[in-house]
Order: sequence, then structure tokens, then C-alpha cells
Amino acid sequence: MELFSEEYFMTKALDEAKKAFELGEVPVGAIVVCNEYIVAKAHNSTEQLHDVTAHAEIIAITAAANYLQSKYLKQCTLYVTLEPCIMCAGALKWAQIGKIVYGAVDEKNGFMTVGKSILHPQTKLSYGVLENDCSKLLTSFFKSKRFSSLI
Amino acid sequence: MELFSEEYFMTKALDEAKKAFELGEVPVGAIVVCNEYIVAKAHNSTEQLHDVTAHAEIIAITAAANYLQSKYLKQCTLYVTLEPCIMCAGALKWAQIGKIVYGAVDEKNGFMTVGKSILHPQTKLSYGVLENDCSKLLTSFFKSKRFSSLI
Repeated sequence: MELFSEEYFMTKALDEAKKAFELGEVPVGAIVVCNEYIVAKAHNSTEQLHDVTAHAEIIAITAAANYLQSKYLKQCTLYVTLEPCIMCAGALKWAQIGKIVYGAVDEKNGFMTVGKSILHPQTKLSYGVLENDCSKLLTSFFKSKRFSSLI
Repeated sequence: MELFSEEYFMTKALDEAKKAFELGEVPVGAIVVCNEYIVAKAHNSTEQLHDVTAHAEIIAITAAANYLQSKYLKQCTLYVTLEPCIMCAGALKWAQIGKIVYGAVDEKNGFMTVGKSILHPQTKLSYGVLENDCSKLLTSFFKSKRFSSLI
């Protein structure tokens, strides 16, 4: 795997998703990269924080903005293991994020159910990166949840 | 003004918006009400926190969920002085908020540019409550900003 490729950075987002899995959270991870430097890492924390807004992307945006002391993330790329939801796409628009790279598709809750037009017009988009790995983690999480509910 | 009416609670959201005004923030305020009891108050804090996600609604949802120790706010009403944006509407969907009451319309960035379908199907909606007061506060904020930029 090439250093600093989309696949390389997606493995870092996957590492975050795996942390969420271990904590019993829906396993979604995100990182924010600026000039090939990871400025924020986060995973979904909605259960731990009792907070529906605590998606990986929202926490990553807040952390990156805090680190860079800038509301806008025009020079940054967000890598996330699952297609962002409408809330997160709205946040990424406000942040004027430079690029979004996501892995698995979310046909039910993904922002593409509304369309790319809800992103900032300058935001680039790439998807399907390590899609299988990202999907498998989610599938095995929901399988384990169903299994544990039967015990 | 009738106690516990929509207008009554909107004045409380307006009080929050006025705090934002004083701090140089776009003056939007929100409160969350559960059984006629205010469980959260917040105002837009994007400038102070260098964080585009720090809208009044997002902070109010997080605070209400923390107070109630529940991710879901099905029994709650959010009062907000300005029509929520797409990010906030997405958050309100995840929270399954019982009702949204807003004051001024946001023709540019409001969630109605996409449509009511991005809210939870059980969420009730009311708008135009104290619309003039909510709008006037925003208009005078932007006027003062333009004036100060001319000095």
C-alpha cells in the first residue's frame, strides 16, 4: 500500500472504527488529514455520550478545527469508513472541507439519499475506498448484536 | 402572553439569541422543553469555539440529552429563533425530537430548501412564531457588522 494514498489513510480511519467496535458503538471511524498530516482522529461515540450528534465526523471536525484554530477546513480531507449522514454532510458543508473520502455506502441514511448538492460546491468526493473492509466491520457488528440479543 | 404557549417559550429562545448578539455571534438561540420544563438553553457559539458545528440546536440537543440521560428526545420540543440548517435538521432527526418550533425563515440555508422529509416522520413542526422579533435581531446584527466593517 502506497504511503499517503487514500487506502493508507482509510486504514487509519478503520483503526478508529475498530475502537468503536470494541466499545459497543456502531463501528464508524474518521480522520482529518491536512498536508498529509493527521490532525484529528475520532470514532462514533453516540452510546457512550448518550448523544446522537457524537458521530465520528462531527467529533473529527471539532477536533481538527480546534487543532488548526480555524473554523474552515478548506485544505483538509476527511476520511470516514461509512458514507456520512445528512447531519454530518451539513457540518462538512459549513466547514467547507476540501475533500471527503468514504468507504462503505449507507443506502438508508447516507447523504447521497438527498444528493451531492448538500455539500459545499468546492468539496471533492471519493468513495468505495477499502469498501469491503469498512462494510465487513459493520456487518459483523450488527451480527454480533443480533446474536447477543438471542442469548 | 399565555404561560407555556409557543410565544412564551420563543421569548426564552430569543433571550439566548440576544446573548449570542452581545458576544458577536450570529444571534440564534434555542431551548429544549420537556413537560413544560426547560431542560436545555443554548446559543450559537461558532465564533467563540472556532467550530462550525456549535449551532444553538446542536448544543441544545447535546445538553438536553445529557440532562435527561437519553439519546432520544421524543417527548421534547425544540424552540429555535431561526429555521434549522440541514446539519441541525439531521441531528434533530437522529434525536427523534417530538416537535420543532422556529421563528424566522432561512431561505438560503434552512432545511426546508431540501424539505420536511429530512426530519423524523413523527416530528411535528410549527413556524413563524415571533417571526418579526427573531428576524429583526438577525437583521440588526448583520447591519451592525456591515457598519463596523466600514469604520
